[in-house]
Amino acid sequence: MTYCVGMLLDAGLVFLSDSRTNAGVDQISTFRKVTIFERPGDRVMVLMGAGNLAISQAVVNVLHEHENEPGIKGIWTSKNMFEASLAVGEALREVHKRDAEALKDHHIEFNASLIFGGQIGGEEPRLFCIYAAGNFIEATPETPYFQIGESKYGKPILDRVISRSTSLAQGAKCALISMDSTIRSNLSVGVPLDLLSIKRDELKIHSHVNIDENHAYFRMIRTRWSESLRHAFHEIPDPEWMRRS
Amino acid sequence: MTYCVGMLLDAGLVFLSDSRTNAGVDQISTFRKVTIFERPGDRVMVLMGAGNLAISQAVVNVLHEHENEPGIKGIWTSKNMFEASLAVGEALREVHKRDAEALKDHHIEFNASLIFGGQIGGEEPRLFCIYAAGNFIEATPETPYFQIGESKYGKPILDRVISRSTSLAQGAKCALISMDSTIRSNLSVGVPLDLLSIKRDELKIHSHVNIDENHAYFRMIRTRWSESLRHAFHEIPDPEWMRRS
Repeated sequence: MTYCVGMLLDAGLVFLSDSRTNAGVDQISTFRKVTIFERPGDRVMVLMGAGNLAISQAVVNVLHEHENEPGIKGIWTSKNMFEASLAVGEALREVHKRDAEALKDHHIEFNASLIFGGQIGGEEPRLFCIYAAGNFIEATPETPYFQIGESKYGKPILDRVISRSTSLAQGAKCALISMDSTIRSNLSVGVPLDLLSIKRDELKIHSHVNIDENHAYFRMIRTRWSESLRHAFHEIPDPEWMRRS
Repeated sequence: MTYCVGMLLDAGLVFLSDSRTNAGVDQISTFRKVTIFERPGDRVMVLMGAGNLAISQAVVNVLHEHENEPGIKGIWTSKNMFEASLAVGEALREVHKRDAEALKDHHIEFNASLIFGGQIGGEEPRLFCIYAAGNFIEATPETPYFQIGESKYGKPILDRVISRSTSLAQGAKCALISMDSTIRSNLSVGVPLDLLSIKRDELKIHSHVNIDENHAYFRMIRTRWSESLRHAFHEIPDPEWMRRS
């Protein structure tokens, strides 16, 4: 399983991904699920994948291959993030064409979803969620984030806190709290985590931190958030009709 | 969809259920999913169902039919909660025998899960989760609650707050917070809610409250919990490496 969240804020973009993969509970490994495409001053893009790891890795390889093929509109030559997302969708379709039939023979679903965001040239930062069919949706002011993978445990805090005016630092903090709730409830989501941010108009990666179980800030969040929830819980009065129960 | 949670505490049992059912997003109705079996002074049991409503309603009917059939060990003649759970499991198997083949013809899965808890005579209160196959597991001190239906959004707060020593009133409060997180994230879970408690050794329903959208306590929880989460979020320091982002 996987849990990834991407946010589109006025200040820029935040990306957080775990790194656990599993093929059954007895085959658990650590793989990075984040790929950075960066040409400082020109464009910066981040891709995260959930689902079948072979598929999302293949997509990244196809994108790299396209880099050197003349005549193909890849992510390095796209004029804007919409074109770049089309290129990622096309890469996914290429992998589907190559692998889907064989996967079907083995009763394996072609299961992949991607979060793709960044900024190209003078355009605004943009964020997309790309489906297995290669089609995609874009984040809007009403829904400034996307989640892929094991998304439910960590959704309530995002819904309550994140809006477009959230700062990058607050976005990162909220993403880590959301990840903490997910890790506590699903064994197949785990550290190390990749936490990245892109600051609007910098056209490069603003920060990239790798977080393992000894990371002081994440440890603080894990402890403090539990304490805060318990404290908040006890601050709310008990139901009157049961007070003496 | 449905969300139900049942808790086994030292003080007794707490049950909370929503009442929304849907067959597609354009066919949403309100149905009670909680059934009380009570003979004050002798036994008190509560059954909640998720999955196919026709199945869980049929189970209740079979249990009532068994009441008057001599020679059948039903929930009214069971000597303890284990026997009563076997009777509920048997009722589920009877419904399966009658309906599963026909459901299969219509490509409908035999989908049902039940939470069943209560107290009989001098035995301790006990809580069970009964699966579609009629088999079941019992709550233990390590895992004092069961959820059925749309369980993920509301699980983190249960994991952080509920232990066997939680009072009935606190258990009810926590169940309502868990329900609030679920209702916010899943349109097909909704009010009115049924909130019940059984106090240890009372051998009757201790409290039964029906909660609709105008219920003052639930409205207070909905507002206060969101405020508390946002407050707790802002109390946690932002990540240092991003503070000026």
